[in-house]
Amino acid sequence: MSNNMWLVFAMGLGVVSLAYALYLYAWVNRQEAGGPREQAIAGYIQEGARAYLAKLYGTLAVLVAVLGVLIALIFSLDMLETVQARQFILNAHPLRGVWTAVAFVLGAGCSGVAGYLGMSIAVRANLRSAVAAKLGLNPAFRVAFYAGAVLGLAMVGTAVIGISAIFLLTGDPEIVLGFSLGASAMALLAKAGGGIFTKTADIAADLVGKVEVGIPEDDPRNPAVIADNVGDNVGDVAGMGADIFDSYVASAVAAMILGATAARTDPGQTGFYVVFPLVLCAVGMLASFIGIQFVRVGRNGKPGAALNRGTVVTCIIFAGLATLLKLLIGFNTGVLIATIAGLVIAVLIGFCTDYFTNDERRPVQQVAAMSKSGSAITIITGLSYGLISILPSIIGIVGATLAAYFAAEAFGVSGIYGIGIAAVGMLSITSVIVSADAYGPIVDNAKGIAEMSDMGHEVVERCDTLDSAGNTAKAITKGFAISAAALTVLALFAAYAEVLAAIGIPLDIDLQKPLVLAGVLLGATCPPVFSALLTLAVTKNAFLMIEEIRAQFRARPGILKGTERPDYARCVSIASSGALASLILPAVIAVIVPLAVGLLLGTDALGGFLGGSIFTGVIFALFMSNAGGLWDNGKKYIEAGHHGGPGSEAHKAAVVGDTVGDPFKDTAGPSINTLITVMSLVSSLFAPVIAALTLGNFL
Amino acid sequence: MSNNMWLVFAMGLGVVSLAYALYLYAWVNRQEAGGPREQAIAGYIQEGARAYLAKLYGTLAVLVAVLGVLIALIFSLDMLETVQARQFILNAHPLRGVWTAVAFVLGAGCSGVAGYLGMSIAVRANLRSAVAAKLGLNPAFRVAFYAGAVLGLAMVGTAVIGISAIFLLTGDPEIVLGFSLGASAMALLAKAGGGIFTKTADIAADLVGKVEVGIPEDDPRNPAVIADNVGDNVGDVAGMGADIFDSYVASAVAAMILGATAARTDPGQTGFYVVFPLVLCAVGMLASFIGIQFVRVGRNGKPGAALNRGTVVTCIIFAGLATLLKLLIGFNTGVLIATIAGLVIAVLIGFCTDYFTNDERRPVQQVAAMSKSGSAITIITGLSYGLISILPSIIGIVGATLAAYFAAEAFGVSGIYGIGIAAVGMLSITSVIVSADAYGPIVDNAKGIAEMSDMGHEVVERCDTLDSAGNTAKAITKGFAISAAALTVLALFAAYAEVLAAIGIPLDIDLQKPLVLAGVLLGATCPPVFSALLTLAVTKNAFLMIEEIRAQFRARPGILKGTERPDYARCVSIASSGALASLILPAVIAVIVPLAVGLLLGTDALGGFLGGSIFTGVIFALFMSNAGGLWDNGKKYIEAGHHGGPGSEAHKAAVVGDTVGDPFKDTAGPSINTLITVMSLVSSLFAPVIAALTLGNFL
Repeated sequence: MSNNMWLVFAMGLGVVSLAYALYLYAWVNRQEAGGPREQAIAGYIQEGARAYLAKLYGTLAVLVAVLGVLIALIFSLDMLETVQARQFILNAHPLRGVWTAVAFVLGAGCSGVAGYLGMSIAVRANLRSAVAAKLGLNPAFRVAFYAGAVLGLAMVGTAVIGISAIFLLTGDPEIVLGFSLGASAMALLAKAGGGIFTKTADIAADLVGKVEVGIPEDDPRNPAVIADNVGDNVGDVAGMGADIFDSYVASAVAAMILGATAARTDPGQTGFYVVFPLVLCAVGMLASFIGIQFVRVGRNGKPGAALNRGTVVTCIIFAGLATLLKLLIGFNTGVLIATIAGLVIAVLIGFCTDYFTNDERRPVQQVAAMSKSGSAITIITGLSYGLISILPSIIGIVGATLAAYFAAEAFGVSGIYGIGIAAVGMLSITSVIVSADAYGPIVDNAKGIAEMSDMGHEVVERCDTLDSAGNTAKAITKGFAISAAALTVLALFAAYAEVLAAIGIPLDIDLQKPLVLAGVLLGATCPPVFSALLTLAVTKNAFLMIEEIRAQFRARPGILKGTERPDYARCVSIASSGALASLILPAVIAVIVPLAVGLLLGTDALGGFLGGSIFTGVIFALFMSNAGGLWDNGKKYIEAGHHGGPGSEAHKAAVVGDTVGDPFKDTAGPSINTLITVMSLVSSLFAPVIAALTLGNFL
Repeated sequence: MSNNMWLVFAMGLGVVSLAYALYLYAWVNRQEAGGPREQAIAGYIQEGARAYLAKLYGTLAVLVAVLGVLIALIFSLDMLETVQARQFILNAHPLRGVWTAVAFVLGAGCSGVAGYLGMSIAVRANLRSAVAAKLGLNPAFRVAFYAGAVLGLAMVGTAVIGISAIFLLTGDPEIVLGFSLGASAMALLAKAGGGIFTKTADIAADLVGKVEVGIPEDDPRNPAVIADNVGDNVGDVAGMGADIFDSYVASAVAAMILGATAARTDPGQTGFYVVFPLVLCAVGMLASFIGIQFVRVGRNGKPGAALNRGTVVTCIIFAGLATLLKLLIGFNTGVLIATIAGLVIAVLIGFCTDYFTNDERRPVQQVAAMSKSGSAITIITGLSYGLISILPSIIGIVGATLAAYFAAEAFGVSGIYGIGIAAVGMLSITSVIVSADAYGPIVDNAKGIAEMSDMGHEVVERCDTLDSAGNTAKAITKGFAISAAALTVLALFAAYAEVLAAIGIPLDIDLQKPLVLAGVLLGATCPPVFSALLTLAVTKNAFLMIEEIRAQFRARPGILKGTERPDYARCVSIASSGALASLILPAVIAVIVPLAVGLLLGTDALGGFLGGSIFTGVIFALFMSNAGGLWDNGKKYIEAGHHGGPGSEAHKAAVVGDTVGDPFKDTAGPSINTLITVMSLVSSLFAPVIAALTLGNFL
């Protein structure tokens, strides 16, 4: 099969994936939507989500337009004086600038379309899942999971179609970098913005509702209750989807770029190595189509087990299909080993994450027990276990990196290509991972709707069972997301070197060089500062929303009596505007700082900078996600009746831990991946420009 | 002047410094010691401190003996097969193994002697300072500051005498590495152990005393009150002293090793460059002798300003003397610039630290204001500002590194030697820094004794003024300590490369090599995990002590009535044993992990490992110290009457922040420096052995 045929094959499966997503969309939409009361509440959520998405896409459009024009201009201008860089830019593709800009817009667009589909079905599925829960656990589960699968399948489909199309048309993997940067720009806004939105609403709703006026969670009298439910969708559905879309595309593009120099013993394979990442994506889609069929709950089955079964079965099918493909077309053995090594280690890291956040294990139980001594001890213990939890995952990532590298080298392929392929291997089953992830906020919302519209004890309890299943599955999917992101950025890092090598500038990032050291130190500082800006944004916006809620209660006493409807839209609007306004500084860090470092200190320092941001980025992402999960489950463990149960002193301390952990695990932690990806892509894309203009090369 | 004469000159000033320390010791000891009641209380503290020191030195003796014999054996054995490494070991010095072992024991011993002197005068000066406070602020201030100066002067004196003596006798700077490792071993036990001790007692005393039974701080009925006061001495006097002793020695030794290859244009200067770090230490001692005279408080003077004036004046005198020396003997201009660059940036970083922890600035006030929304928001805001505070300091460290490097290169000296000299420049005024630092816990204890023995309102108030001056000065001295440690470890990192180069193994730590990347990731994981182990040890031991205090109150009701004396020694013993037992795992990380990485993955991976540990080490040290200081001062700001003052909801939240920050700033944060130093020294010292035996070089 020719390389172009492989591209068409991948694109074809992308179309199937998208069609499958649309089929499930229609199916979910056909389900029973309940009576007017439920529909009214779900309507508020839909409306709030739509309002936020409109703002988000508006902001994105401006950003994309500005950056797109800038990209087109910079790469078309005749101002670059370094001969190689200039020639490279002129020779590579006649319309390189325009094409890159088109790819950029397309990348943001594909991610936006997939996110829109996923989100618009999620805010329909929550209601339908709650209504289906009247019939039983399984019907409700199916609605929620298939709605989640809409996002998973649409994402993967649009990504593969987009990448394949651009590569078919231009034949230049570096133009595809533009597509990836577009996806990253979307992820930066959607994930960080959504994360700020959801935690602003969550904290404000809890602090005034539960603590000050003593009404239960998800009570319709709380003006922030709709914002809180909208937040689940914009943060955990749209944001999460954009984040993983970003990693998925970046891993494929990085591996494609590395493929161009991968062949050591068999140069004839080069073209194949470039398209092979897309072939793997196609195989992953096939495996996912089958794997999704395994996610079913029997009459007394456990939904959490069903979700994890789906993941593991898909992994096995994928490994089988990849091996079969190897037998059929006989590609390099080292590459196959790298693919499978990535997959195996992702599952292992998932189990590590599970150990640190599972309430049947020592860390969570220890944090719960320590809560008896007050909130300070809860915080110290949780922070400590969060830091310790870094270790096994890092060992896993190091193991995967070395295994993939040396397996590839052993079979005559460049080791760094092996690392890139391991990342693609991990992410190949993305659609199943995303389906399970998006399932969580849908059933969480279903529970909220069931409570707000008084659907009765049995329905609420079923929704609760479905909800905790989402949390169980989260540990494994998070392990996947973080380890895949880590390998992806390592591959992107190598792609940066590759891009420089192509214009005749060898990258020398020896840590003994002072400019490299300076770059690493500055890069290592970015993830902690970036995450701090996001968490500060959450507290600042929560403060504003708390004022608004109090003002509504004061001005209209009927709200608390239940005779007057609160102004939900005001809270949604505070969360939306606050989230997007707070993104300016973080976005500047992501885009401007790498350019500034490159232009001032040179391309080697920028290499060090990327390295530094990866090291602390992975560490802070693991730390924040795991500490947050640990506190969350510590609180739930106490709520299940341990150490005095709800209302006890231990419970109060655990609530403090959970609140601290919220912006850690849902805002800052997952946004760090996007930050690093954006910084790496900006550096790679602008590498020729930086190389031509930098001051640092004169030092 | 010949190079040996310079060594004798440095040694001579070391002797003067030590003599000055002993003179001040005798002077402080001659001061009025008050009546039997005060003496009884001070006696408990002395006894407790002595008990802990006995245990600490016992443990140290065992560790030193075992490691010393091991070092002597390893370097004497004929088992190393790599030719260069073996020849190097055999050729370098006929009795290299024995000498290194002797140097190692001596390093631990010198640090121990200085620490013992400083501690034994501190536990006498607290009482005498309290008694002198009856006469006025100035007499009390003088007692406390001169007692602090005993530690500062003794440390610097013994360090310079020890280093000069070993170098005079062997002429091999790599043997002096053994001295430095001895000092580090001491620092690891004294600082981490002391940090665990002091926070265990502090948290336990507060949680049971203040919160559960409602007695004030420093109340003699609290069984943990003596342990708490002992903790101030073992953590903040002995531990702090050992920590800075360690940095001081390491910076000098690293610069000496780098001196051997520093000369580019004038090889005749090589010998001078090797001894020059000691010359700078001597100049720093001279400057300190003069600077100490400027630390005086007038009748209405401010003690905080007096301490900072001492630091700044000493810096200026040092810069003047160094310039004068340059004019007299005409050494390299680049080296002079590097020296002064280090000093200037250390002061600037001190002011940055001050900004983030000063209650007249935005961060502390913001955290205090946020405390009105409860402890979770206090924690999130403090963590965020702590993370942001990393940025200016890192920019400062990067600036100092680049300035020192390029200044040296511009004048024909190796840039990395410039970095080493900048670190020595920063640390040259160590005795003044340590004097101001040790002053803090002495006046803190004085306040405790004044309260416990009812010395009256005026005396307690004076002691309180002196105490808050200690906190003000701390910001600047902390800035010095962390930035000096950062430059020192960068120099040690270069020394590791130097040691390898000497045995014919070029260090190649390009971040594009997978083993280097693996090393960096593993190294970057060590500081967070290490600090988590220390904070977990604090909560675990505090838990045990809380049980003991409760048991004493239950068993002997007379204690709370004030008719029965609590068993202070039991609490001291719990803190001592707990602290030392908890050190086993952290010590293993510090010593065994770098050896394991080197032996398994090779010398390049070990280089990456050291780099990684420096990057996150500096970041976590800054983050933890500044966040801790921020919460501490946020609490004090509220206690000064803002946001509802003591007893308000905001105050309760701020207390939680302060408790979380305690092990951050006094246990984990400052111990990270020691961890990195130990790991770097172990790697450099054992580099020939690792190079000979490693598996990694075969990959």
